[in-house]
Amino acid sequence: VASRLPKVGTTIFTVMSRLAQECGAINLSQGYPDFNAEDLLFERVAHWMRAGANQYPPMAGVPALREAIARKVEALCGTAYDVDSEITVTAGATQALFTAVAALVHPGDEVIVFEPVYDSYAPAIELQGGTVVRMRLSAPDYRPDWAAVAAAITPRTRMIMINSPHNPTATVWSADDMAQLAALTRDTGIVVVSDEVYEHIVFDGVRHESCARHPELAARSLIVSSFGKTYHITGWKVGYVVGPRELMAEFRKVHQFNVFTVNTPVQHALADYMADASRHLGLAAFYQDKRDFFRNAMAASRFELLPSRGTYFQLARYHALSDLPDTAFCEYLTREVGVAAIPVSAFFADGHDDRVVRFCFAKNEDTLAQACERLTRLT
Amino acid sequence: VASRLPKVGTTIFTVMSRLAQECGAINLSQGYPDFNAEDLLFERVAHWMRAGANQYPPMAGVPALREAIARKVEALCGTAYDVDSEITVTAGATQALFTAVAALVHPGDEVIVFEPVYDSYAPAIELQGGTVVRMRLSAPDYRPDWAAVAAAITPRTRMIMINSPHNPTATVWSADDMAQLAALTRDTGIVVVSDEVYEHIVFDGVRHESCARHPELAARSLIVSSFGKTYHITGWKVGYVVGPRELMAEFRKVHQFNVFTVNTPVQHALADYMADASRHLGLAAFYQDKRDFFRNAMAASRFELLPSRGTYFQLARYHALSDLPDTAFCEYLTREVGVAAIPVSAFFADGHDDRVVRFCFAKNEDTLAQACERLTRLT
Ligand SMILES: CSCCC(=O)C(=O)O
Ligand SMILES: CSCCC(=O)C(=O)O
Repeated sequence: VASRLPKVGTTIFTVMSRLAQECGAINLSQGYPDFNAEDLLFERVAHWMRAGANQYPPMAGVPALREAIARKVEALCGTAYDVDSEITVTAGATQALFTAVAALVHPGDEVIVFEPVYDSYAPAIELQGGTVVRMRLSAPDYRPDWAAVAAAITPRTRMIMINSPHNPTATVWSADDMAQLAALTRDTGIVVVSDEVYEHIVFDGVRHESCARHPELAARSLIVSSFGKTYHITGWKVGYVVGPRELMAEFRKVHQFNVFTVNTPVQHALADYMADASRHLGLAAFYQDKRDFFRNAMAASRFELLPSRGTYFQLARYHALSDLPDTAFCEYLTREVGVAAIPVSAFFADGHDDRVVRFCFAKNEDTLAQACERLTRLT
Repeated sequence: VASRLPKVGTTIFTVMSRLAQECGAINLSQGYPDFNAEDLLFERVAHWMRAGANQYPPMAGVPALREAIARKVEALCGTAYDVDSEITVTAGATQALFTAVAALVHPGDEVIVFEPVYDSYAPAIELQGGTVVRMRLSAPDYRPDWAAVAAAITPRTRMIMINSPHNPTATVWSADDMAQLAALTRDTGIVVVSDEVYEHIVFDGVRHESCARHPELAARSLIVSSFGKTYHITGWKVGYVVGPRELMAEFRKVHQFNVFTVNTPVQHALADYMADASRHLGLAAFYQDKRDFFRNAMAASRFELLPSRGTYFQLARYHALSDLPDTAFCEYLTREVGVAAIPVSAFFADGHDDRVVRFCFAKNEDTLAQACERLTRLT
């Protein structure tokens, strides 16, 4: 069979989680909590299943959930999205990103991404015949170089995909970054696809700069988010996309023939759950405590911790510990030390290796303590 | 925005269900039951949510569910699929079909489909730069013309998409049809994608001829099915695909970057539910009763009912009632008669109109009786 994605193997998250399981290692690789979501959410799913809400919902999503999303986005960001034509519920953020690319990127179009880049972006672009244009974010700061972005824009640039808070670097873009992006895309036909799944996990009082807070950007952006990170249900696979009507119409043309729609009782349950608008308010503090716990416990180690300003990830340099490339080092960590991590080189097309690994701290303190105990023993 | 699917509007199912709701009509258009699934299934979902199975499952699906699928397919069809490498759980059959096309159809490839064709197939193909080659199934029999298929095969033919039991015509392909397909694709590189979502809804003692029953075909087929139709949960959006390792490897390359994976607690619940292997056994009789009830109640009407040999659909000609094109007639039925149906022309690219409409009889007898009462009043 001739492959449409000849360069693609199995995603690093599957590879590392599988290895962690084989080795019985503590899994700080793939990003997901090891604690449970709230019972109330389960009760609502059970309620809607028993009530018979088990058949197709509307293609764009259960209206009550779209209304709840509209209320949240308007309250937080000041932008009002039309419930009928500007909000679509998706089978997770990954499906939203894949669908946005499929709906808007024509063969030969260029799409700018920022490397290290989440591993689904480039294959989604290449599958549609698009060209991936990679802007390097350099260790240890991983800040975008806007002059370089300006120089990379051509008449073929169709889309810029951004992600703040950023996975895997745990950086957060500033209002100035958003202003730069707005200036660069002004009077172009460029669409911004903004992956904001960690929108509620931002630390130290810094504000998440959603595209929806910046009206000029919002007018040309599809903004993608997810319930997985916010409500501790990464396995439920429910996300959403908001954006102006013209972009959403194209998005839905593909969405309806990709997944068509998303699990009905789960959508209703999320709508009920979101009725309490304060639901996500504690999340940043909750994860900031975990970050601080993890960093404190790691202080005795020989890892050099980079700043973690958002997401539930922590980057660490290990140059004092090993000369191994990061992939080999992560395998060593998993097999010999009993803690799995993600090699950041997996997010670079050319395998660029800053000798940095990513730990996920979305874990109970017991788990983190035990992992740090193992990691600090390493000399 | 330049559209990637300029010809595509909103799917007919959304259009008709919306109109039915606006008019308060009985909705026999979009295919879904108006009765609930079994409580046991809901209990299992609730159990797994409380047990904390709410984070990412393996990319290919929860192992217990893949094992249950393997057991079922082997028991029914005699083909053993490898749980690790030959079975993938999907976010419904539509996502499986979309992903199979995206993974295997290269720009310029030809894909043969049978018209009337489910409305997601052609856009999925066109989005990947493939050419849709349409084989006409003609009213009132809607049988494939294998000589015409043979003539349509070219060196560019990459895939044949089939669907039996067939939506919307309610026809069922025979063992001879499968033999013809096997002969035509022998020693070619053609992949068969077989949409078998109505596999358990076949009437009058006829057997469903899965590709998995025909080893030669199975070796070059991705077989798609769904739990929606079998367990009365069309809104849960869980399906699966089975196929040989080499095809599945390509499928998963796209799947992992499209939806990545599928709702965890729901997968576990379905695995538990399938542990009773007799679960689907009553389904054909259950729907045959409904078909017979509907046909009997319609006997007094001036609709001419075509055979319904499988699926939960019934085609009806209305030439004795109206000269309207089928789309206008369905709108009239919905608005004036209070019963929504699907115009079969929606499944033809050129709008070919046999003056036939599709009713869904996956409904309680009360619903069917009331609908038939309205439809028989029509003269
Ligand atoms: C698709 S599984 C990956 C989860 C995740 O977003 C991450 O670990 O970065
Ligand atoms: C995607 S909603 C359509 C349901 C269905 O398969 C049908 O009515 O044919």
